[in-house]
Amino acid sequence: MNKTPVIIDCDPGIDDAMMLALAFSRPELDIKLVTTEAGNLSTDKTTYNALSFLTYINQNVEVARGLAHPIFRTLEVAEDVHGEGGLGNVKWAEPTLKESKRPAIMAIYETLMASDELVTIIATGPLTNIGALLLAHPEVKPKIKVISWMGGAAVGGNMSTTAEFNAYVDPHAAEIVFRSGVPIVMSGLDVTHKAYITREEMAKLRTLGTPFAEKAADMMKFYTFTQSQTPFYAPNFEEQIRVHDVCAVAAIVAPELFKGDNYYVEIELEGRYTTGTTIVDYTHKTGKKPNAKVLHSVNREGYIKLFFDACTTIGQQLLEE
Amino acid sequence: MNKTPVIIDCDPGIDDAMMLALAFSRPELDIKLVTTEAGNLSTDKTTYNALSFLTYINQNVEVARGLAHPIFRTLEVAEDVHGEGGLGNVKWAEPTLKESKRPAIMAIYETLMASDELVTIIATGPLTNIGALLLAHPEVKPKIKVISWMGGAAVGGNMSTTAEFNAYVDPHAAEIVFRSGVPIVMSGLDVTHKAYITREEMAKLRTLGTPFAEKAADMMKFYTFTQSQTPFYAPNFEEQIRVHDVCAVAAIVAPELFKGDNYYVEIELEGRYTTGTTIVDYTHKTGKKPNAKVLHSVNREGYIKLFFDACTTIGQQLLEE
Amino acid sequence: MNKTPVIIDCDPGIDDAMMLALAFSRPELDIKLVTTEAGNLSTDKTTYNALSFLTYINQNVEVARGLAHPIFRTLEVAEDVHGEGGLGNVKWAEPTLKESKRPAIMAIYETLMASDELVTIIATGPLTNIGALLLAHPEVKPKIKVISWMGGAAVGGNMSTTAEFNAYVDPHAAEIVFRSGVPIVMSGLDVTHKAYITREEMAKLRTLGTPFAEKAADMMKFYTFTQSQTPFYAPNFEEQIRVHDVCAVAAIVAPELFKGDNYYVEIELEGRYTTGTTIVDYTHKTGKKPNAKVLHSVNREGYIKLFFDACTTIGQQLLEE
Amino acid sequence: MNKTPVIIDCDPGIDDAMMLALAFSRPELDIKLVTTEAGNLSTDKTTYNALSFLTYINQNVEVARGLAHPIFRTLEVAEDVHGEGGLGNVKWAEPTLKESKRPAIMAIYETLMASDELVTIIATGPLTNIGALLLAHPEVKPKIKVISWMGGAAVGGNMSTTAEFNAYVDPHAAEIVFRSGVPIVMSGLDVTHKAYITREEMAKLRTLGTPFAEKAADMMKFYTFTQSQTPFYAPNFEEQIRVHDVCAVAAIVAPELFKGDNYYVEIELEGRYTTGTTIVDYTHKTGKKPNAKVLHSVNREGYIKLFFDACTTIGQQLLEE
Repeated sequence: MNKTPVIIDCDPGIDDAMMLALAFSRPELDIKLVTTEAGNLSTDKTTYNALSFLTYINQNVEVARGLAHPIFRTLEVAEDVHGEGGLGNVKWAEPTLKESKRPAIMAIYETLMASDELVTIIATGPLTNIGALLLAHPEVKPKIKVISWMGGAAVGGNMSTTAEFNAYVDPHAAEIVFRSGVPIVMSGLDVTHKAYITREEMAKLRTLGTPFAEKAADMMKFYTFTQSQTPFYAPNFEEQIRVHDVCAVAAIVAPELFKGDNYYVEIELEGRYTTGTTIVDYTHKTGKKPNAKVLHSVNREGYIKLFFDACTTIGQQLLEE
Repeated sequence: MNKTPVIIDCDPGIDDAMMLALAFSRPELDIKLVTTEAGNLSTDKTTYNALSFLTYINQNVEVARGLAHPIFRTLEVAEDVHGEGGLGNVKWAEPTLKESKRPAIMAIYETLMASDELVTIIATGPLTNIGALLLAHPEVKPKIKVISWMGGAAVGGNMSTTAEFNAYVDPHAAEIVFRSGVPIVMSGLDVTHKAYITREEMAKLRTLGTPFAEKAADMMKFYTFTQSQTPFYAPNFEEQIRVHDVCAVAAIVAPELFKGDNYYVEIELEGRYTTGTTIVDYTHKTGKKPNAKVLHSVNREGYIKLFFDACTTIGQQLLEE
Repeated sequence: MNKTPVIIDCDPGIDDAMMLALAFSRPELDIKLVTTEAGNLSTDKTTYNALSFLTYINQNVEVARGLAHPIFRTLEVAEDVHGEGGLGNVKWAEPTLKESKRPAIMAIYETLMASDELVTIIATGPLTNIGALLLAHPEVKPKIKVISWMGGAAVGGNMSTTAEFNAYVDPHAAEIVFRSGVPIVMSGLDVTHKAYITREEMAKLRTLGTPFAEKAADMMKFYTFTQSQTPFYAPNFEEQIRVHDVCAVAAIVAPELFKGDNYYVEIELEGRYTTGTTIVDYTHKTGKKPNAKVLHSVNREGYIKLFFDACTTIGQQLLEE
Repeated sequence: MNKTPVIIDCDPGIDDAMMLALAFSRPELDIKLVTTEAGNLSTDKTTYNALSFLTYINQNVEVARGLAHPIFRTLEVAEDVHGEGGLGNVKWAEPTLKESKRPAIMAIYETLMASDELVTIIATGPLTNIGALLLAHPEVKPKIKVISWMGGAAVGGNMSTTAEFNAYVDPHAAEIVFRSGVPIVMSGLDVTHKAYITREEMAKLRTLGTPFAEKAADMMKFYTFTQSQTPFYAPNFEEQIRVHDVCAVAAIVAPELFKGDNYYVEIELEGRYTTGTTIVDYTHKTGKKPNAKVLHSVNREGYIKLFFDACTTIGQQLLEE
């Protein structure tokens, strides 16, 4: 089987953990490196969480620590959403996996330069590491197949009225990435808000009957149940869990589940109220060439099946080991 | 009949003319003053157009010229949308009505201060005059019942990806108005895009059989037929004409046609890409007290009936005079 | 004697009081109106102080209260510099003079429109009132001879590294004034820092032997003694008192004491660190036409004589009355 | 002799060439690497010029090409000041020295990481390479002794009224460097404008009697003679040549020639008129810890002697080889 070489850059975080579960459940992905961002939590915590979760799911992969701070802005974390420890107060495992000696950016650089094939980058946090890498070492660009990013929004926001969390935390990094010329698939709130799981559906997680599924269900319990209230564009959903980050892997392993179009995207860096807004030129006013495929809809049933299959696979594998 | 005292501030403009038709068709409104803005066109043209249209529909009302320029930004007009003359290349009448000797702001000031009752302001252009008035003369605030403004958008834009035309042309004026504490009803793109008229419906205008309706139909022919294309929030409409400004009058004379909620609204003044964005805090992130009722939906059938009734009334009155 | 009609807009403040003393000591000035700004203190306090000081020096002039807030920024006062009451904790008189019924802007408007001669405006606070007036009523511009403003700086600042207090408090108002086309004489820190009075010189105030001079000396005692420390452009002065506001009157009654040149001046409105900076284009990089005469040097001996003569005159007049 | 390991990052440029002459004339410097910036000219030209000049002065040193563009801003070059080729239309030598295979940032990274001693970085262009390096690889910071930068200004500017060229071209890079915690010596316009050479003094260059001196004199002929005209802070100089970049080397090899103080410096990134302004907190208003030694005066005689000695040394060495 011809596997796709992959680097995952993330800030676990509850949905990052579920994203890792999906990624590591897929035999077609050859995950060469996991790097950590400051975002949902500090890199101390996101690195620990990555090591802990990967130890639990028994994956021996290099985990390299990323930059501790956004390029210009002061770090704002989201401990209220993810719990102080960042995984909904669930303890996965005391890490036996050790943090890499290479800093994240050097690890990504060397992994890319050493690869004979194009590498897919899955990024589910702020883009600080990827942005700094592309800025300092543009020579890596031809090595990247695509960056599949969970972040941004064409419409609305969750950190401010107009800005999504990952874009808001490091808009300068995002701007560098979107200007880089590297192909981008953007899973913004437009699609992640549609890729929700209801409380009822989530309850089925426990019926999978594995310790992994139990722990996953415990962790998800902590996660925000949100109800769309805006009369301006959102339908009135039932209670729902939005496991945002899982979309960035799904968009790679099951692109047929998503619809999207190519647009020019730029990031507001200087607004008083709008900094971090990803401006998706969906009315083609700028006349600029598209730089990203922006997803806007999802086959939710397919998406949930994909996610539950991953939980089943991982849970079984762990029992069998 | 206890009439509502009204001041209309506008920049005709095709849809401003239709807005004036609706306003002057309504017996319950006592329109004391029409003032002009620089917006769709320069005040030379918007003042001429107001005088021309009001002469045609035989209304003897004071028309006072407003400020020639936005507070800080350079004026950007919309001649492509409204035709060079601004009324879709339709000639209504050689004005016999004369421009007031009072500048618009002094005329509004004195009209407000002289009124025993609270005055309703209907504003369908950039808010330069109203903003400058409220800034320089806060003593007028208790005289204003409500400002019904066509402008802004909670989602999307038409001048840039995120900014509506009237807000974009003079965002500083809009910010002054929204900070003023005066009650505001905002008919933004959210509702005006839903208050559309199809090409077929518009064709019925000619069947009203009056010279006024003929001329109105001719003028509207020029107006932009727009088709919503965004996959992010808009349904796929048929070909449609959006007579935005009419909403600002309709929201006063037929408020039962609209739904809206109270939100805190602020305007981005400093963004690189987002200046003029009206940030409607529909997710209640700012914690600030609502300062405007933002309309988000409309009973389109009722709205069209209201508009066609006005055209019928005006057309008949002119025949009878 | 052909007197110069004058309107004074100020925010007393210690140096504003001294500025009023100079202005009212000059027989060639016909001071028609004093208006108050929010700046050194709130308008409650600046209005009270103007009334109190003018009562003490026995001047029957209309005092009209100005706008309570800068156009966009939040008011920052300077009570640390001027004392809580704003006049260095000196009590001048219980006001018998009453505040005008006219708000400041309407009073200035009507005074200008009623004048047959061109009127000189002396402004020694933030430019909120003047800016709002010029914005809302451009028809007054031909009535103004010159605006003599104490504010701004070509080099350096006192509120931030690059911004002077009056410009910083309301940069938007300043920008409106500088864009207005009305002639401006700007006495910025460049010249007010050279128009200092040493502690020794100030001690002579008491030797004038009048109760007024005593009180003035008491008030000035409170005022900041500053010592220039920058190695970048300032000579090393002795201990000095900078009675900034007095310059704005002196520049009108004794222009021969000052040197300055005509430059284009614009105000930074959007910087993160530089908002309120008055950018004096002294290297002629912008290619734009000068809009202000910016003073840069002063005959200090002449200036001090002017000031002491005023104190003598006022003191004597009060004794004789 | 214990030599100081040095990396030079520059954008030759007339004064960069003279800076290289001084640096390579000094036996106490061990210049391990020369990297190029986009600034005075594109990296195509600055790299060619570095190779050409170093070939002429017979130095076998690694020359690595830097990033082609500033981090966010569009590149603005200064061909009017330096001539289209960038060396005042003087041809030094057809390069026999070849460009390194390593990109500049990787070359600096590896040079720093391989060094046992602290390395001095001399930077005389925009700080794009250094900024991107420090952002992506903070692990190099402990390897850097000091960054001696020609750029910025506490007072005034040469690219705009308030911004110096190198800071203006890439303010974001400068901000990253100044926030990095690495020791910085800043030779801004404050000192480089005092480190001038008069036309008469420059004429003596030819009397040194070497072909090198002849070519240097030819090149310098092209360079701007500037006359300070601001009445706000500068004395009235005679005609003068400001060989700015030479200061950054002089500040390392002859620090006794300079006076300066430690200040907190931050860079305006978001102003409308002031972007690129280096705000030197010389009045200690921010309360922040100094992050740079900002030079403000120079022993001009000593400085000229240093420069002429270098020209003599280089000229002689070339004759002897």
